[in-house]
Amino acid sequence: MKIGILGTGTVGQTLASRLAELGHEVVIGTRNVEEKLASESKDMYGNPPFKEWQKEHGNIRLVKFSEAAEFGEVIINATKGGSSIDVLKQAGENTLNNKVLVDIGNPLDASKGMPPSLLPELSNTSSLGEQIQSSFPQAKVVKTLNTMWAGIMVNPQMVNNGDHTNFICGNDEEAKQTVRKLLTGMGWKDENILDLGDISSSRGVESFLPTWLRIMNSKQSAAFNLRIVE
Amino acid sequence: MKIGILGTGTVGQTLASRLAELGHEVVIGTRNVEEKLASESKDMYGNPPFKEWQKEHGNIRLVKFSEAAEFGEVIINATKGGSSIDVLKQAGENTLNNKVLVDIGNPLDASKGMPPSLLPELSNTSSLGEQIQSSFPQAKVVKTLNTMWAGIMVNPQMVNNGDHTNFICGNDEEAKQTVRKLLTGMGWKDENILDLGDISSSRGVESFLPTWLRIMNSKQSAAFNLRIVE
Repeated sequence: MKIGILGTGTVGQTLASRLAELGHEVVIGTRNVEEKLASESKDMYGNPPFKEWQKEHGNIRLVKFSEAAEFGEVIINATKGGSSIDVLKQAGENTLNNKVLVDIGNPLDASKGMPPSLLPELSNTSSLGEQIQSSFPQAKVVKTLNTMWAGIMVNPQMVNNGDHTNFICGNDEEAKQTVRKLLTGMGWKDENILDLGDISSSRGVESFLPTWLRIMNSKQSAAFNLRIVE
Repeated sequence: MKIGILGTGTVGQTLASRLAELGHEVVIGTRNVEEKLASESKDMYGNPPFKEWQKEHGNIRLVKFSEAAEFGEVIINATKGGSSIDVLKQAGENTLNNKVLVDIGNPLDASKGMPPSLLPELSNTSSLGEQIQSSFPQAKVVKTLNTMWAGIMVNPQMVNNGDHTNFICGNDEEAKQTVRKLLTGMGWKDENILDLGDISSSRGVESFLPTWLRIMNSKQSAAFNLRIVE
């Protein structure tokens, strides 16, 4: 499948390399290709500049946001939550129409101290997932994978023999089925993908981030996930 | 141990009957004892009036908030999050000083549609747990049990053989130890009680409620919990 990933951070890189390894055709979108490839800066977590990663992943092209959106049958939003709607506008509404748009962003707000809170305009009585859907009404937005560390997104076997929960929500059943197939391709067991209903459930899954951040702090590790047990 | 529970709803009743069954001396506090015992109204979930429950639990006295706070070595806040600080003021700051105050409230806001959101003034960059602690600085506030259905709080064996996670946080280590003992007495395994640090982690655990509500809606059951797996 042709996949266009928006965002060059750790999440975008991790998804891109795993999906390419599984045989998908993958491109990564960024604002300015030349600048990104020239940059020597580490990210806020001390990860090496993008060009180091690119050297080892020559099969994954870095392109402009709009080109990534055109290329992909499925588009994955792996940008920072506060910038996502701007980025998707750069990708182009017409380009996104009728496509499956997987949103794994979180509306984190680091401006009010650490650990981050959520951007007030994108949380509580709203959410990033909902606002993406309402800004791009013809796109088929599916929210998933935003509740865990990138390493686990693409390799769920890493913890508890793969038995833990990934949420999914969205308004379009066929789009959710397409995303389920991508997820099971990465190792997710179908019974561990919990459908929370329409895109308004983005409020529920994005609200988990402050919980996640506190657990991460307590464990001093991001290599965990939640499992819903009955 | 002498325990004063504030709040006559399902959570207060469930905790009271279980703790009494385990041999603790328990009273329940309310605003107006006569009114509460006279009331014929069901609660918003259709549960019978308090007096029906009281008939079957004659060993648990219903008293004023202030009397419950005086009686208890441990006080449990099981009132609605939006009213909790008012209730605790009625209980009396001097009475609460130096006592362990277990907060299991959630700042739910049903005024902006269902499922409830969180009260903006008690969430995101603040929390109920923190505001209780700052309003009653000499009380030893411990936040726990707020992330699950009451039936599971008092009987964790009900799901997954008792293997699921209960969070705890608070500024006073000794108070957290006291609460751990109460929890293990109700059947919680010590290794499943995850300490998230000081009371500011209330933001993390209260933020889980919107997640919980969506999972509950998807499962059409409250008989689940989360388990953190690694």
